[in-house]
Amino acid sequence: MRVLGVDPGLTRCGVGVVEGVPGRPLTMLGVGVVRTPADAELGHRLVAVEQGIEEWLDAHRPEYVAVERVFSQHNVRTVMGTAQASAVAMLCAARRGIPVALHTPSEVKAAVTGSGRADKAQVGAMVTRLLRLAAPPKPADAADALALAICHIWRAPAQNRLQRAAAQHAGRAPLAPNPASKGRTA
Amino acid sequence: MRVLGVDPGLTRCGVGVVEGVPGRPLTMLGVGVVRTPADAELGHRLVAVEQGIEEWLDAHRPEYVAVERVFSQHNVRTVMGTAQASAVAMLCAARRGIPVALHTPSEVKAAVTGSGRADKAQVGAMVTRLLRLAAPPKPADAADALALAICHIWRAPAQNRLQRAAAQHAGRAPLAPNPASKGRTA
Repeated sequence: MRVLGVDPGLTRCGVGVVEGVPGRPLTMLGVGVVRTPADAELGHRLVAVEQGIEEWLDAHRPEYVAVERVFSQHNVRTVMGTAQASAVAMLCAARRGIPVALHTPSEVKAAVTGSGRADKAQVGAMVTRLLRLAAPPKPADAADALALAICHIWRAPAQNRLQRAAAQHAGRAPLAPNPASKGRTA
Repeated sequence: MRVLGVDPGLTRCGVGVVEGVPGRPLTMLGVGVVRTPADAELGHRLVAVEQGIEEWLDAHRPEYVAVERVFSQHNVRTVMGTAQASAVAMLCAARRGIPVALHTPSEVKAAVTGSGRADKAQVGAMVTRLLRLAAPPKPADAADALALAICHIWRAPAQNRLQRAAAQHAGRAPLAPNPASKGRTA
C-alpha cells in the first residue's frame, strides 16, 4: 500500500510517500516540500501547488492520498491558504481516480506517537524511527506529510479497501485495472 | 471588458458573465449555477466544480475572473467548502493566464446597491435593473455572481489594466495575443 501524505499549505506544502502494510516495517519512498512565493498572486500560487502535486503523483503513483483535515478554528490568517492548498491536492488526486482520505492533526499524532497532543519534535522523532531514517525530515511540514501517510496505512485498512473498491473496482488491486490478479500481494 | 463572476460554493457555485465598461449599459452574456451533490466525496465534488468552471471559461472566454473573497469569520460549517471551491475557480483561471480579482461581499453590495450592507433582495433587484433582465436571476448565488462581475467592471479599471498587463501583455487586448490591435474596441 503506497500513500502520498500531504500537509497542505501555500508557502510550504509538505509531501511524503510511504509504502507498507500494518504490522510490518514501513518504507519511505520520497519526501519534500512544494513551495510557492508569498508575494505571488494567489491564483499563480495555486497553479504552482497543482504542478508540484502532479509531479509527486507522476513520480510515485500512490494508491491513496492522505491530506490533513483543515479546521476553521485554526489561525484565521493562515487557514484560508491551507484550505485552498488542500483543495488543490484533493482535486489532483480525485482527477486521477485516487481515493483521498482526510485525517485530523490529532489522529495523525495519535497514530505515530500514541498521543493526540504530541508536539512537532515528538512527531519528527517517531517518523524518523518508524521509517528508519538517519535524521528527522526537515522542515516540519515534510515530517508531518510522512506522518499523515503512516497514519493512513495504519488506520482502518478495511475502510480503505471499501473506499478503494468504490473508487475503482473491488479488491486491493493497483490503480491500473488488473482483474486477473486477485491474490493478496500486500 | 468581459468578466466571469464566481460566487464560490460546493453545493451551489454561482457563475455569471457580464460584458461592458464603466459608464455604459452592461450586457449579461450568461448566468448559471455549478452544482455538486452534497453526498459525494469532497475530491469528486472539487473535480465537478473544476469541470463546470472550465465549461464556462470555454464558452465565454472572459478576460477577467472575479471571485468572492472568502472570510474565515463566516459560518465555520460552510467556510471550508467555500474556500475550496474558490481555490478551484482561481486555479482554473490562473492556469489559462486569466487575471483573478477578489472582491469582498460588502464591496460587491456597495458597488451595485450603494450600500455595503444591502440584503440579497436588494442585490437581486439592482442586478436585474443594471442588466435589464426580465426577472431577478435565481438562485441568489447566480445573482451574486453577476453582481461580482459588475463590481469588477466598475471598480478600479486602471488597476485591472495593470494586472492584465502583468499577466499577459500591455494594453486591453483580448486573451489571444494580438499586438496589431492597439485601438480601443471597448
